[in-house]
Amino acid sequence: MYRTTTCGALRSNNIGSVVTLSGWVQKIRDKGFMIWIDLRDRYGITQLIFDEDRTPKEIMESAKNLGREYVIQVTGKVIERASKNPAIPTGDIEILVTELIVLNHAKTPPFTIENETDGGEDLRMKYRYLDIRRNPVKENLIFRHRVTLEVRKYLSNEGFIEVETPYLIKSTPEGARDFVVPSRMNAGQFYALPQSPQTFKQLLMVGGMDKYFQIVKCFRDEDLRADRQPEFTQIDCEMAFVEQEDVLNTFEGLTKHLLKEIKGVTVEKFPRMTYDEAMQRYGNDKPDIRFGMEFGELNDVAQHKNFNVFNSAELVVGIAVPGGNKYSRKEIDKLIDWVKRPQVGALGMVYVRCNEDGSYKSSVDKFYDQDDLTKWAEKTGANAGDLICVLSGEKDTVRAQLSALRMELAERLGLRNPNVFAPLWVVDFPLLEWDEETQRYHAMHHPFTSPKPEQIPLLKTNPGAVKANAYDLVLNGNEIGGGSIRIHNKQTQAMMFDYLGFTPEEAKEQFGFLMNAFEYGAPPHGGIAFGLDRLVAILGGQETIRDFIAFPKNNSGRDVMIDAPAKIDQEQLKELHLKIEN
Amino acid sequence: MYRTTTCGALRSNNIGSVVTLSGWVQKIRDKGFMIWIDLRDRYGITQLIFDEDRTPKEIMESAKNLGREYVIQVTGKVIERASKNPAIPTGDIEILVTELIVLNHAKTPPFTIENETDGGEDLRMKYRYLDIRRNPVKENLIFRHRVTLEVRKYLSNEGFIEVETPYLIKSTPEGARDFVVPSRMNAGQFYALPQSPQTFKQLLMVGGMDKYFQIVKCFRDEDLRADRQPEFTQIDCEMAFVEQEDVLNTFEGLTKHLLKEIKGVTVEKFPRMTYDEAMQRYGNDKPDIRFGMEFGELNDVAQHKNFNVFNSAELVVGIAVPGGNKYSRKEIDKLIDWVKRPQVGALGMVYVRCNEDGSYKSSVDKFYDQDDLTKWAEKTGANAGDLICVLSGEKDTVRAQLSALRMELAERLGLRNPNVFAPLWVVDFPLLEWDEETQRYHAMHHPFTSPKPEQIPLLKTNPGAVKANAYDLVLNGNEIGGGSIRIHNKQTQAMMFDYLGFTPEEAKEQFGFLMNAFEYGAPPHGGIAFGLDRLVAILGGQETIRDFIAFPKNNSGRDVMIDAPAKIDQEQLKELHLKIEN
Repeated sequence: MYRTTTCGALRSNNIGSVVTLSGWVQKIRDKGFMIWIDLRDRYGITQLIFDEDRTPKEIMESAKNLGREYVIQVTGKVIERASKNPAIPTGDIEILVTELIVLNHAKTPPFTIENETDGGEDLRMKYRYLDIRRNPVKENLIFRHRVTLEVRKYLSNEGFIEVETPYLIKSTPEGARDFVVPSRMNAGQFYALPQSPQTFKQLLMVGGMDKYFQIVKCFRDEDLRADRQPEFTQIDCEMAFVEQEDVLNTFEGLTKHLLKEIKGVTVEKFPRMTYDEAMQRYGNDKPDIRFGMEFGELNDVAQHKNFNVFNSAELVVGIAVPGGNKYSRKEIDKLIDWVKRPQVGALGMVYVRCNEDGSYKSSVDKFYDQDDLTKWAEKTGANAGDLICVLSGEKDTVRAQLSALRMELAERLGLRNPNVFAPLWVVDFPLLEWDEETQRYHAMHHPFTSPKPEQIPLLKTNPGAVKANAYDLVLNGNEIGGGSIRIHNKQTQAMMFDYLGFTPEEAKEQFGFLMNAFEYGAPPHGGIAFGLDRLVAILGGQETIRDFIAFPKNNSGRDVMIDAPAKIDQEQLKELHLKIEN
Repeated sequence: MYRTTTCGALRSNNIGSVVTLSGWVQKIRDKGFMIWIDLRDRYGITQLIFDEDRTPKEIMESAKNLGREYVIQVTGKVIERASKNPAIPTGDIEILVTELIVLNHAKTPPFTIENETDGGEDLRMKYRYLDIRRNPVKENLIFRHRVTLEVRKYLSNEGFIEVETPYLIKSTPEGARDFVVPSRMNAGQFYALPQSPQTFKQLLMVGGMDKYFQIVKCFRDEDLRADRQPEFTQIDCEMAFVEQEDVLNTFEGLTKHLLKEIKGVTVEKFPRMTYDEAMQRYGNDKPDIRFGMEFGELNDVAQHKNFNVFNSAELVVGIAVPGGNKYSRKEIDKLIDWVKRPQVGALGMVYVRCNEDGSYKSSVDKFYDQDDLTKWAEKTGANAGDLICVLSGEKDTVRAQLSALRMELAERLGLRNPNVFAPLWVVDFPLLEWDEETQRYHAMHHPFTSPKPEQIPLLKTNPGAVKANAYDLVLNGNEIGGGSIRIHNKQTQAMMFDYLGFTPEEAKEQFGFLMNAFEYGAPPHGGIAFGLDRLVAILGGQETIRDFIAFPKNNSGRDVMIDAPAKIDQEQLKELHLKIEN
C-alpha cells in the first residue's frame, strides 16, 4: 500500500498517529541539520520534516538527494508544527519521517509547478501533463467535472435520458466543414464526425424518447479563431411536445441550479429580450447586461445639422461612458485610435464631454449647440461627468463597432465582474441571414429551425424579416446555449430545404432519413445545446475555454504534446484506398 | 401547452379531473357508436374513449379518421373504466375526450410497434426511430442511462474525476487498426480516433489527477465479427499510487454497487482465479461460473492404454454433463457433429454414459475397462446419470473446443440463468502472446502493462511464461472489464517497446511524449476499462450489445438508417489533399 491517507487530510487531531503518504516533492528547504519538504498530491500539501537528532542517518542522506518533482513515499509520525501555517489546511502539523522510498526520479521540469508559473503557453501545452499538476489547471478540470455531474443529476431528475448518438455519421455540406473518416470496408466512402447530434436527437424525439440529453464531443473543421477548438463539448438536449416556453423554463431551471450548486448564487427569473431589441440596445445578440452603457440612437437629434458624416449615415448611435469626462485629450485620442483599428473598423468617433457644471463640450461643437447635446445626453442616459462616444455608418456595422467599444470600456472600467452572473434569454432570432459570398440566405441557426408559423408567408416577400422560434441563453456577454423549436412536418422541412437552395435530390440524399421519419408520426419538438467548454469557463469566472480543457489543441489544430496530426503509413493509406495529392 | 400530464400517470384518484395528453395512437377499436384508442407516450398507455352520446359529433368524426401512430393531443375528463385492465398502471381509468387535435399524420409503419414485432433486424435498423418506440428497445436505452448515471455517481463519490480526453489524436500501428481523419490544415497528415484513451489517462496520472474516469467512445477499424461495433463505449478508469489489490477492490465496489442499485442483487466478495487456473478448469479466460461442468484432465488415466488418439494427444480432457445419460444415441451423434463443425473444429468426441446402477458404457470400451472409467468419472466429477464428454489434442486447441461444448451444453440445459450474477476476477494474465502471423510476441493487454517485477529476468529466457499485473473482470462468462498495473518508468517501458519489436526511433515517434512524461516524476499507477455496451447488456440479462445501442452499425460498419459511410464531394477531397485510388 502506497499511502494510508492523502496530503490534504491531516489535522491537529491526527497528531501522534503514524501515517504513510505518497506524492511529489514540491519544495525543499535544507538547513543541513534539518530538512523540510513540502509533499504534494491532488488533495493538498503536507510538510515533512527530517532532522539530525530524530531521523535515521541514511534517511537524512537520501532526503538530501531528493529533487523537485521526485515521487516519494514516506512513513512517519504526525507531530505538531513549531511554527504553524494558517494558509494551508494541514498547516498545524508536519510528518517526522522514519521511512523514505523514492518511487520515481524527476528531471528538472521545464517550468515551475506553482500557481503562478514561469512557463509560457507553448511550453505549458507541450508538457501539459506537468501543467495539470499546477493547482489552477487541476482545479479547473475538477470544476468541470463538478459542473457536468450536476448537469447530469439535474436533467436525470427532470426525466431526461442520456442517449449516446453515433460519432461515425454522414457528411453534409450545409454549415461548417466536416471532419471526415475514410472507410476501409467501403472503398471511396467516408464517415463524417458530427458537428452536433442534431438529426439524431430529432430522430429520438420521433422515436418517442420524449426528453433526451447528452454531453457529447462535436467536431468542426474550421479555420480556427482565437479560443475555438476543432473538437468541443456540448450539452445537447431535446424535448417532445413542447413549445418555446417549456424549453426556456426547463433550461432556465438547469442554469439556476448550476449557479446555485456550483457558485452559491441565486438568480431570479431570467430577463428576456428579442433579438431586435438586443441589437438596438446593445448592438449585439449576446449583450453583457451586468452593466448599462446602453445604446442611444441619435438620428433624430443629430441629423440634418450640416454635419455630413452623420447626415449620410444610416445610423448615428452613442453610449455614455460613466466618469469618462475625466479622460485626458490624449486618452480620448487613444480611444479614437482603438475604434479605428482594423479589428473594429470605425472611420472615426465623435465625443461629448459632459462637464460637472451641466455644460457640454464636443468634438463637433461647430455643428451642434448645447441644446442639441442635451438631447444626445438624454438619449444615451449620460450624466454630468460622463463621456458620450458616438459612431455612425451602416446600421449593422456601426452597431458591431459600438458594441466592441462598449465591451472594451466596460472591461477597462472593471464593470465585467466575474463574480456577478447576469443571464439573459435572447429570443425571436431571424430565421435567415444573408450571405454576401454566396449571395443567398442561409439558415441562421440551422435548417431544422421552425419559422414562426404566422410569418411563413413572409418568406416569399421579405425573407430577412421572418423570425424563428429560436433562442439563445446569454451569460455575462457570452452565448452559452442556443436552440429552437424544430420543424416537425415534412412539407415545411422540404420548403425550408428548397428555400436554402437544396435541390429535392440533394435534400433527399442528405436528409432523406429525417424527411422519411417525419412521415411516421413526428411529435412537435424543440431543444437547446450548451457549449460546455464556455459554460464552465464562465462559471469559473474566466473566458478562455482552453484553461478548462485537459488537452486542448493550438490555433493550427495541433496537439503539440503528442504531435498530432502526423503522417501515416503508406500501407494504411493503401488500405483506405487513398493517395495524397500534393 | 401540449399536455398537463403523461400517458403513464393517471390513476383512480384522478377521476373527475380534466387533463390534456399528447402521444401516439397505439391501437383503435371502433365499434361505430363507441371508439377506444390506446394513446402511448414514453411513460405509458392511457385509454381514450369517444362515444356517440357524450362526445361532440365532429370529434367523433375526426377520431374515426385517425390511424396507427398518428400524433394527437386530447383534452377530456378522467372517468372510471367500466372494465378495468389490471395489466397496466392506468388500467382503472380512461379519458372521455372533449377536444382532439391531430398534431401529425403517420404513414402505416413498416413493422408493428409492439413488444413483439413482425419487423426483421434489417428493417428495424433502417427505421430505428420507429424501433425505439417499441418498449423493449426504449427500456434498454433508459436502462443504459440508469447504469451510466450510477457509475458516475459512484465513482465521483469515490473521488474520481471525469476528464474528457481528445478524440483527434495520433495513429499508432500497434494493436487494432485506427480510424484516421485527414487534416485539412496540415496537408498529408492525419489524426486518428482513439482505440482507448490509454496514454492520456496515464498522462493524467503523471499530471497528479490521482483518480480519473471517463465514459467515452472508442473506435476500432476491425473486420467486424458478430456483435462488434466500430465505435463502442468504455468506462475508462485510472488511479495513481495503487497496487493491483487497490484497483480490484475499488472496481469490485463499483460492480457490487451496480448489481445492488440496478438489479437489487447482493454479491459477496468476488472470487479470484489465475489465468492458468481458469484455462485449466474451464478452458477459457472468461469462465461462466454460474454452473459447474469443470474440466477433468485425463492424461494420467487415459493415456498408455493402446488408444492412439489419446496417447498422441498433448491433453485429454473431459466434462460431465449433468443428466446427460438420458441422451439418445442419435442426440449424442448430433453432439459429436456439433463439436466437429468448423467453428469448433474437434476431430471427434469420446463419451461415457454413467448408468444409474454405477456402471459405465463408453464409446471406447475396447480400450478402457470399468476401473479406468471410474477414474474418469472421479476426475470430471461425474455422477450416475451423467454423460462424460472427452476431447483430446493440442492443449490450447482442445481447451477452446471443450469450452465451446461446455457453454453450448449449459445453454441447452438452461444453466445460464440471466437473473443470476456470478462475477469473477481473473488475474495473472501472461504479459505476451505469440502471434503466428508475424512470428513474434505481442503484448497480450497492451505495451504499457507492467510485467510482474520479479519475472522480468524471464523475459530473456522464457518470454511466454512471464506473467503481468493484469486482470479481467468476468461476469457470467463475459469479459466486462480488463486492466493492469502500468509501467511507470522509462527504462522498463523502453525495454518493453524494444521487446515488442519497436526500434528506439519508432518508440520515440509514437510514444515519445509518454516516455518523456515518465522522466518528470511518474507515480505508480494502474487502471481498468469496462466495455459499457456489454456490461449494460449483461446487467439487462441479455448478451447482444446492439440491443443496447441507440443507433448501431451493421456488420459491414454501415449505418443503414442514414446510409453512411457515403461518397463526399470532389471539393472536400481536394481541400483534404486526397485522391481516391481504385
